[in-house]
Amino acid sequence: MRKLFQADLINLGEQLIQITSLVHTAMEKAYTAFDTTDLQLAEEVIAADAQIDRLQVELDEKAIELLALQGPVASDLRMIVGALRMSTSLERMGDLARHIAQLARMRYPDRVAPDALHPVFEKMAKLTTQISSRLITLLETRELHLVAEIHALNEQLNDLHASVFTIVAAEDWQQSPATSVDSSLVSRFFERYGDHAVAVANKVDYLVTGSWDSRELS
Amino acid sequence: MRKLFQADLINLGEQLIQITSLVHTAMEKAYTAFDTTDLQLAEEVIAADAQIDRLQVELDEKAIELLALQGPVASDLRMIVGALRMSTSLERMGDLARHIAQLARMRYPDRVAPDALHPVFEKMAKLTTQISSRLITLLETRELHLVAEIHALNEQLNDLHASVFTIVAAEDWQQSPATSVDSSLVSRFFERYGDHAVAVANKVDYLVTGSWDSRELS
Repeated sequence: MRKLFQADLINLGEQLIQITSLVHTAMEKAYTAFDTTDLQLAEEVIAADAQIDRLQVELDEKAIELLALQGPVASDLRMIVGALRMSTSLERMGDLARHIAQLARMRYPDRVAPDALHPVFEKMAKLTTQISSRLITLLETRELHLVAEIHALNEQLNDLHASVFTIVAAEDWQQSPATSVDSSLVSRFFERYGDHAVAVANKVDYLVTGSWDSRELS
Repeated sequence: MRKLFQADLINLGEQLIQITSLVHTAMEKAYTAFDTTDLQLAEEVIAADAQIDRLQVELDEKAIELLALQGPVASDLRMIVGALRMSTSLERMGDLARHIAQLARMRYPDRVAPDALHPVFEKMAKLTTQISSRLITLLETRELHLVAEIHALNEQLNDLHASVFTIVAAEDWQQSPATSVDSSLVSRFFERYGDHAVAVANKVDYLVTGSWDSRELS
């Protein structure tokens, strides 16, 4: 019984890694679709999000079943509750990738963002995938230096998000209101993706160290 | 022991109601601050959000303690896991009210939104508070017709959110890019608030009926 339970916990961890990998790929593809106006790729990301949602529900049902059947305590309990929390954040990250793909589809065959914002979005997209790539490794290895790295990358993402508003509000900005709105939304989707990744990383930190610090609030 | 545990569960439900009431008041005040450019009220909403965050952490710690000490099963387990999920959504709703107050503070002494959008935002604000008012009653009474009402109100909110994009993209829209961005963000904050309320309502529905339908995915 006990041995089976440990296998269940490991399995839960593997499910989290699988979902994170799918979310990571979704964001990579969503940005490519957005950047290259690739309608087919956008559709692919939108369709794939349903699989992420299904896997989240499966993980949650499994976690609740473990709570019910095993009555876990201490670190096992923390791990299972942590998995429930992390799956919620990961599912939202998948939604945000889908939102970017949906914007690409809505504006097709036009590009969503103007050339002036291309370098910023290129950097933001790179940061988001660096963040989720580190998140996968963090879940696999529990090497806590990755938590700090994810925080640092997310800071850069926040700075770029702020810069988008500055660019859009500048006097030489000549774009349509719809483009202003689309651009700021995409920027916000990237920024929220980073925030959710930080929330997941903080939970891993908490599970490993057992300390519930103020970052847990974020 | 059993009696004490039931008291703990009731207490958990009361904490959810308390947080929902605070979130509801935060949104009411945030819109008033936004609408009347009331800097002091905006500051008040921003400061009060820290209390909502604290209460959420308290509730979560209590829920995890109950899981650890009581090893609950069946409907008790569902209730506790449900409370953990609901508290996450409620905390986000508090953040969204704070975001609206922060926009009011950032643009002070100017108004955030132009006159053209006043009627739409007035309606959206009214819908959000109708939604959270019903959510409070739903948590208190578990009367499931309120779930359907919350869904219906949220549909109206989604339609108004879509209409904001139409107004901002229309040819007669003469506002600055910053105003376009601010307006679409406020609209999105209202819309997200409604979505989170629907998620909470669906969880109450699930706890009462025990049926996990597709709405649970939203």
